[in-house]
Amino acid sequence: MQPDRLSATFAALADPTRRAILARLASGETSVTDLAKPFDISLPAVSKHLKVLEGAGLIARGRDAQWRPCRLQANPLKDIADWVGYYRRHWEESFDRLGSYLKELQRKDNQRKEKRHDRKK
Amino acid sequence: MQPDRLSATFAALADPTRRAILARLASGETSVTDLAKPFDISLPAVSKHLKVLEGAGLIARGRDAQWRPCRLQANPLKDIADWVGYYRRHWEESFDRLGSYLKELQRKDNQRKEKRHDRKK
Repeated sequence: MQPDRLSATFAALADPTRRAILARLASGETSVTDLAKPFDISLPAVSKHLKVLEGAGLIARGRDAQWRPCRLQANPLKDIADWVGYYRRHWEESFDRLGSYLKELQRKDNQRKEKRHDRKK
Repeated sequence: MQPDRLSATFAALADPTRRAILARLASGETSVTDLAKPFDISLPAVSKHLKVLEGAGLIARGRDAQWRPCRLQANPLKDIADWVGYYRRHWEESFDRLGSYLKELQRKDNQRKEKRHDRKK
């Protein structure tokens, strides 16, 4: 089987800490130590998450041996957006159906109220 | 920790067979047997994938005990699109940078060609 980049990207994103790391890196490159601060997990645990993100091409590390800042690489996210965009029509249809259903409920409710009003007259 | 729907959706999508099942269901509801046909895997393996998709709310199964067709449920995909859309600016910037870099390469290449041309004169 050929390497499946899209699966690797989806798997890397299937974790709230890794998504929080990406959100942090969206505002600029950061050292691993600073990256770890807001999370209640050890540095080795953060490093493990970074390796997964790096493997999926979602982050890159600087070459400076002392600092090695992490930087967001957003191109794989474009592939996710392209893939999911194919289904846009489907979720829009399902919201349209929900809208029609709510309108129908409201119409019936109004009819019932009118009938009750007529009986009172 | 509260149940994390977004992680469950990402994890469900991190498999090419499950994404192919969703693509098939995008063109209409289908029985499990018909769904399994194009894949070189057993019915129990397909059922396992369907359970993951159902757990993530990406498909629903009909109530008819005989047929139980599968149907795409696209709403969780909208959540993915919303999440990834936040990073659009980043991948657009990175494509812009690539564009500038290629233009710069072309400019240098043209300069070199002009110099060579001048020397020949």
